[in-house]
Amino acid sequence: MRMYDIISKKRDGFKLCGNELEFFVKGYVKGKVPDYQASAFLMAAFIRGLDNEETSILANLMADSGDRLDLSSIKSTIVDKHSTGGVGDKITLIAAPIVASCGVPVAKMSGKSLGHTGGTIDKLDSIPGFNTKIEKGEFINNVKKIGISITGQTGNLAPADKKIYSLRDVTATVNNKSLVASSIMSKKIASGADKILLDVKTGKGAFMKSLNESIELASLMVDIGKRAGKETVAYITDMNSPLGNNIGNSLEVVEAIEILKGRGPKDLENIAFEIAARMIAMAVNRDLVECRQLVKESIIERKALSKFEQLIERQGGNPQITKDYSILPQAQIKHKVVAQSDGYIISIDAEALGKECVKLGAGRIKREDPIDYSAGIVLKKKVGDTVESGEVLMEIHTNHRSSFKDSAEILRNSIKTACRKPPVKPMILAYVDSNNVHRYAEY
Amino acid sequence: MRMYDIISKKRDGFKLCGNELEFFVKGYVKGKVPDYQASAFLMAAFIRGLDNEETSILANLMADSGDRLDLSSIKSTIVDKHSTGGVGDKITLIAAPIVASCGVPVAKMSGKSLGHTGGTIDKLDSIPGFNTKIEKGEFINNVKKIGISITGQTGNLAPADKKIYSLRDVTATVNNKSLVASSIMSKKIASGADKILLDVKTGKGAFMKSLNESIELASLMVDIGKRAGKETVAYITDMNSPLGNNIGNSLEVVEAIEILKGRGPKDLENIAFEIAARMIAMAVNRDLVECRQLVKESIIERKALSKFEQLIERQGGNPQITKDYSILPQAQIKHKVVAQSDGYIISIDAEALGKECVKLGAGRIKREDPIDYSAGIVLKKKVGDTVESGEVLMEIHTNHRSSFKDSAEILRNSIKTACRKPPVKPMILAYVDSNNVHRYAEY
Repeated sequence: MRMYDIISKKRDGFKLCGNELEFFVKGYVKGKVPDYQASAFLMAAFIRGLDNEETSILANLMADSGDRLDLSSIKSTIVDKHSTGGVGDKITLIAAPIVASCGVPVAKMSGKSLGHTGGTIDKLDSIPGFNTKIEKGEFINNVKKIGISITGQTGNLAPADKKIYSLRDVTATVNNKSLVASSIMSKKIASGADKILLDVKTGKGAFMKSLNESIELASLMVDIGKRAGKETVAYITDMNSPLGNNIGNSLEVVEAIEILKGRGPKDLENIAFEIAARMIAMAVNRDLVECRQLVKESIIERKALSKFEQLIERQGGNPQITKDYSILPQAQIKHKVVAQSDGYIISIDAEALGKECVKLGAGRIKREDPIDYSAGIVLKKKVGDTVESGEVLMEIHTNHRSSFKDSAEILRNSIKTACRKPPVKPMILAYVDSNNVHRYAEY
Repeated sequence: MRMYDIISKKRDGFKLCGNELEFFVKGYVKGKVPDYQASAFLMAAFIRGLDNEETSILANLMADSGDRLDLSSIKSTIVDKHSTGGVGDKITLIAAPIVASCGVPVAKMSGKSLGHTGGTIDKLDSIPGFNTKIEKGEFINNVKKIGISITGQTGNLAPADKKIYSLRDVTATVNNKSLVASSIMSKKIASGADKILLDVKTGKGAFMKSLNESIELASLMVDIGKRAGKETVAYITDMNSPLGNNIGNSLEVVEAIEILKGRGPKDLENIAFEIAARMIAMAVNRDLVECRQLVKESIIERKALSKFEQLIERQGGNPQITKDYSILPQAQIKHKVVAQSDGYIISIDAEALGKECVKLGAGRIKREDPIDYSAGIVLKKKVGDTVESGEVLMEIHTNHRSSFKDSAEILRNSIKTACRKPPVKPMILAYVDSNNVHRYAEY
């Protein structure tokens, strides 16, 4: 077998066999297939497409390129949760302690932020002392002891995906449905969970801009999960505007705690609670309506909040942050962005805000870039709110003295107003399982 | 400007501007654009296509990546000739001395063989003493003194094309019309001729398998030539069967000399004479019919033969070869392949013969492979001939004792017979200039 022939075959739009995809993945990981052949192949795959079977095979090959985490010693069904990436998306910080507080163990490997979207690990890293690099044994032990642990992805989790992603990132072959789906699912498969819940973001601030594209991506991932013997379901949720009010690592930790205290923004609460309820329902095969009730009780009784404090303490962090937010990193500059006209806010561009947050120090463009955990944005207005000229739209948190004023101007322009109140749109747009696509709303 | 964005743009099927193509070509030559980005770009260009303007810009950028040969000191119109590559194609060895013998100077840079197709330079290199690596000054001086010189391509002729071609060769991005056309024309533009005549081969033994594809490629190259201010025309000629009877370097020199003596095979003679006549017509703006007459006279009066001897002598070779072929390299093994059935020969697979010739030692797979100048095949039968079981079909010339018997079997099978005489097909199928496509025959 020659890589040349595999490239030609995909270039001409033919379907590849399992052993051809294996030749590519193994050869590339071993360095026998050079970068320039891999990138030509990926471009051919990007343009010509991979079908569900090819995508599933690719995901499993990448999963098998490293160690699969063995969670079998935890004698419960483990449900993993994954978001395709959004702005202000702190759902894992909320749903994970809720689920664990309802007696369903959570053993979660999370990723770091990249580009304009955030990552759970960076958010947890903003908590003083919190260790997101714990060993496999300790990770499993934590789950057994307190029912929850969250750690970063080890170097040997789907290393083929890591190497292939790095190449895709510099060769304009990232945003392809099959390549995205196989990349995400390879890590989910290797992470050892029994079942998988996906939160596929859609809209201006997401990688997938349209609802139909997002449903296609979700259906493909659900299918990959099914083929890998792991029940997989997906919500499609709105990412036109940022989720909640806070964007930036320590700012998002604060907002997650507010939700756990029952007083956070409703858009975020709705999605986070629904995802938590679904995770519980999947794990224990209970009715979803009952599980929603369990979630509410966990919040009212502050069980989820104390589970979060337990998690922080167990992993070396300071649990006092839930009582005193000033323990978290604080930015020196807090600059108010004010409105210059009156009206209703009809849109807040999530992608623009995400990109400005990176400039303010909250995110990274390259994997090795450092992060300022205190940086970010606090929205004071949301879509549908009225605003008067001179009112504060948002607060910029940063330590970059030189550049925040440019950001302020861009951020102001990322909010659009009109004289009529915009219609209220649902945040959860669709639900996909291996049998059906349930659409709740049309764009 | 970023290479990433240029790749994305072509990936999504958009047309690139001149400065984007320039960024790619210059960046790649300088090593600022890495191989893996170049190969992703080439695959995107291969699948999405480049239009005539993009292709023309690419050809000129590659031509300008090195030195353009300045032939202006030769005070005549110089017509270059190029074949897209065939099996048994020794037309340059015939047409060049004919044209020069008619008083039209020939200053020709030629290439080496690659894959199953031959190259003029290897054929000339089989002549003892012949120097195909002469300096620019001597090259031009030869043309001024004796009206003809043929040399290999210097390292600095379109170096961008060389580097890009090497990458295409290993990333399955060779056989794309625009990439082929821009590669060929970049070298033609840089070679300094005023006008260009292309011989686009079509059929089983050519890179382009169908007449329509070949006409498209020819039209594109004619258009690139026109945009570069160089009148360009193209013949589309048949390459289903090998051209003439001899394949292999010194064997082809012998056959070329036979044609110059007026006694070579007619299929080869027809195309070679037509090309020579057209080159003369283009150079001196004379009527084609008159030029065909000039060609015939040159052959009858042996003027072309003596011009070829003059060329050989001038470039250090032994001109006695035209009288004594045994001076040329001779293979130790001459093995007869005999027919196993009776009938009419209906096809001789040019590509199969070309590939076996490489195995016999006559060609190279990689640029640096050595060549056995004596190796090759002499056909004793052509399409349309009758054959009886036991009659000799061809003679294998090789020094490879171990493998020629396998070749003999493959070669026998590459000739198909039937009980009815096949229809006679023309060898010249179409003629393309900047105004029109003239089809002489349909497949």
